[in-house]
Amino acid sequence: MNDGFSFTLLANEPDPCAPRRGRLSTPHGDVETPMFMPVGTAGSVKALGPDDLAAAGTRILLGNTYHLMLRPGADAVAARGGLHKFMAWDGPILTDSGGFQVFSLSQGERGDGKPLATIDDDGVTFRSHLDGSKHRMTAEHSMHVQMALGADIIMAFDECPPGGAARDVVVRAMRRTSTWLARSQAAMTRSRSRLFGIVQGGIHDDLREEHARELTGRHELFGWAVGGLSVGEGKSDMLRALATTTRHLPVHKPRYLMGVGTPEDLLDGIARGVDLFDCVMPTRNARNATLFTSRGKLSIKGARFASDDRPVDEACACYSCRTFSRAYLRHLWNARELLFFRLASLHNVSFYLALMARARAAIERGSFAAFADEERRAWARAHDE
Amino acid sequence: MNDGFSFTLLANEPDPCAPRRGRLSTPHGDVETPMFMPVGTAGSVKALGPDDLAAAGTRILLGNTYHLMLRPGADAVAARGGLHKFMAWDGPILTDSGGFQVFSLSQGERGDGKPLATIDDDGVTFRSHLDGSKHRMTAEHSMHVQMALGADIIMAFDECPPGGAARDVVVRAMRRTSTWLARSQAAMTRSRSRLFGIVQGGIHDDLREEHARELTGRHELFGWAVGGLSVGEGKSDMLRALATTTRHLPVHKPRYLMGVGTPEDLLDGIARGVDLFDCVMPTRNARNATLFTSRGKLSIKGARFASDDRPVDEACACYSCRTFSRAYLRHLWNARELLFFRLASLHNVSFYLALMARARAAIERGSFAAFADEERRAWARAHDE
Repeated sequence: MNDGFSFTLLANEPDPCAPRRGRLSTPHGDVETPMFMPVGTAGSVKALGPDDLAAAGTRILLGNTYHLMLRPGADAVAARGGLHKFMAWDGPILTDSGGFQVFSLSQGERGDGKPLATIDDDGVTFRSHLDGSKHRMTAEHSMHVQMALGADIIMAFDECPPGGAARDVVVRAMRRTSTWLARSQAAMTRSRSRLFGIVQGGIHDDLREEHARELTGRHELFGWAVGGLSVGEGKSDMLRALATTTRHLPVHKPRYLMGVGTPEDLLDGIARGVDLFDCVMPTRNARNATLFTSRGKLSIKGARFASDDRPVDEACACYSCRTFSRAYLRHLWNARELLFFRLASLHNVSFYLALMARARAAIERGSFAAFADEERRAWARAHDE
Repeated sequence: MNDGFSFTLLANEPDPCAPRRGRLSTPHGDVETPMFMPVGTAGSVKALGPDDLAAAGTRILLGNTYHLMLRPGADAVAARGGLHKFMAWDGPILTDSGGFQVFSLSQGERGDGKPLATIDDDGVTFRSHLDGSKHRMTAEHSMHVQMALGADIIMAFDECPPGGAARDVVVRAMRRTSTWLARSQAAMTRSRSRLFGIVQGGIHDDLREEHARELTGRHELFGWAVGGLSVGEGKSDMLRALATTTRHLPVHKPRYLMGVGTPEDLLDGIARGVDLFDCVMPTRNARNATLFTSRGKLSIKGARFASDDRPVDEACACYSCRTFSRAYLRHLWNARELLFFRLASLHNVSFYLALMARARAAIERGSFAAFADEERRAWARAHDE
């Protein structure tokens, strides 16, 4: 019984490390892949309503377990009917495990010099960034929270070491991730959710291969994620480690490259067989006045936009670009108008999702490499030429 | 030649100080009256796009001359095709004269003890609240700015004395307002705009009558506004002065009560023959978490809303109420999510506009007084009874 979940590829036997066109089905609807997932950190994709998200072409959202467990709390969301109902998003939702945010905090210190989070073989003890309250997170707790939220896709609890971590730290994180995956799978008992495992291994090809083989050999899961990349390592290391990982993942399962990335990163990931991406970049950049366009990024703060009647991106069909000029958006930014954040976020998310749609079409035509080269060339051109 | 402008009343000879049902036609469309105008201070009704405004039932917007002349500047807006095109609002727009904001500033002081604005018989000299730069505003300049913005309805330049002003200050403001109206009318040369005059006179019945008779006797204008109310005087003084003014305004011209007010104020104004209102209250309250409902105001901050699955107002058909619970809106407020401001503003504006729609229907039925009593009773009931 698949309970409405399946993943199918258009081609029967693609190369494990090559562009793929697929369809991920969930009880909340289908997702054509490759697909980008906007991030709804605290039960809201910042500045956007579900109407905006649908208009931008969103098919699946990511929710952050760490943020939601602290506020309003997993059981509070469950009591409201789950995350889909709470935030009025009836498409698929993937939740992360909460581990990444917790580990990010462990890089910081409290006022008294003590770390905000400490990791041991069983899990993580951390303090809330909201009120300093102490929390414990384990694989079992992460599963409890994600099941309470009612996510369609649930991520196993893993340890993601920082980009510059020494090899022994990466190995220890792999071991913990392996143990925690077994515990996650045992604890994930919700029939209307599916679990993704996460492969670690840093930038070390041998570790990436070892971990991918080990985990996929031991666990029959719905899908797999590539973790521990885009965390400070160099781009060439990232791409090599990614390719090594996807080469050793089962072809017919969806692959998710976590927390990535720029539009260029997305094309690089698709080229190496990735199906799903998420990143705060489109929404965070929007809130800093940086807008993505078919001819590269622009900062709408620039004085030259004050008399620019063109839309942000003449190739974009989003509400912001159909309706408003660069001059108006610059004015909204200058006047600190709240509407700016909605229009800019809507545009950037639309840009990411339209890029994914064009990438899917290129894969179907069998010309993804040429498409990606052309996109990169266009982004590299000067904006006002 | 009316150039697309007209005002018609459903009843031929209503009482000048009684509820009226009318239709204000402009080149940008018709406005059923009584009507509330959301305030688009700086070229945006805060947190709302034109799509939201249309969904809320908005038919006419108010733009602030003072804010727009300072940023981005009247000529900049004109160069972008006018305010309608700039902000993508193709319905009617009314602009204020800028005088009220300038005079409000004159109550304040600069760091060196000098007033921010000084008024003389010819106009006002003031410093920008944005950068301290010095500006001069006269009737002619106000007309220039409003014509450059391309407003459908342009307000004459007037002096609005503060609520507690002495009688001689009110009389002087009346005299200046009379002179400035003649100058405004002479300077208003745009055929696709229409001018409203403004009646002053504070809370003094004799001055209100005198000024209304004087101005309407001298000037054949498209419409008339009641200025200088809701500026700190008591409610009973306000209502008496309003009634005295409308009683002496021509029946067949639209009347606009400037800067008013609460839902109760709107019903009080309609009862006294007012057709148009504007106020920042619905949007400003929304940004402070105060939401208007058919059973009175509520502050969505309240802890009791954390588990409240009801919409903000069960009687409201707006997008926010159709889609989200009080629990979700409270969560967005607590998490400082930008989406809160859009959803709360959309609801409050929708509430005001739905109230106006019900008031128009009640006038048509000939039962406005009973309707207004019932609304007031509902608002006075405790919220969670």
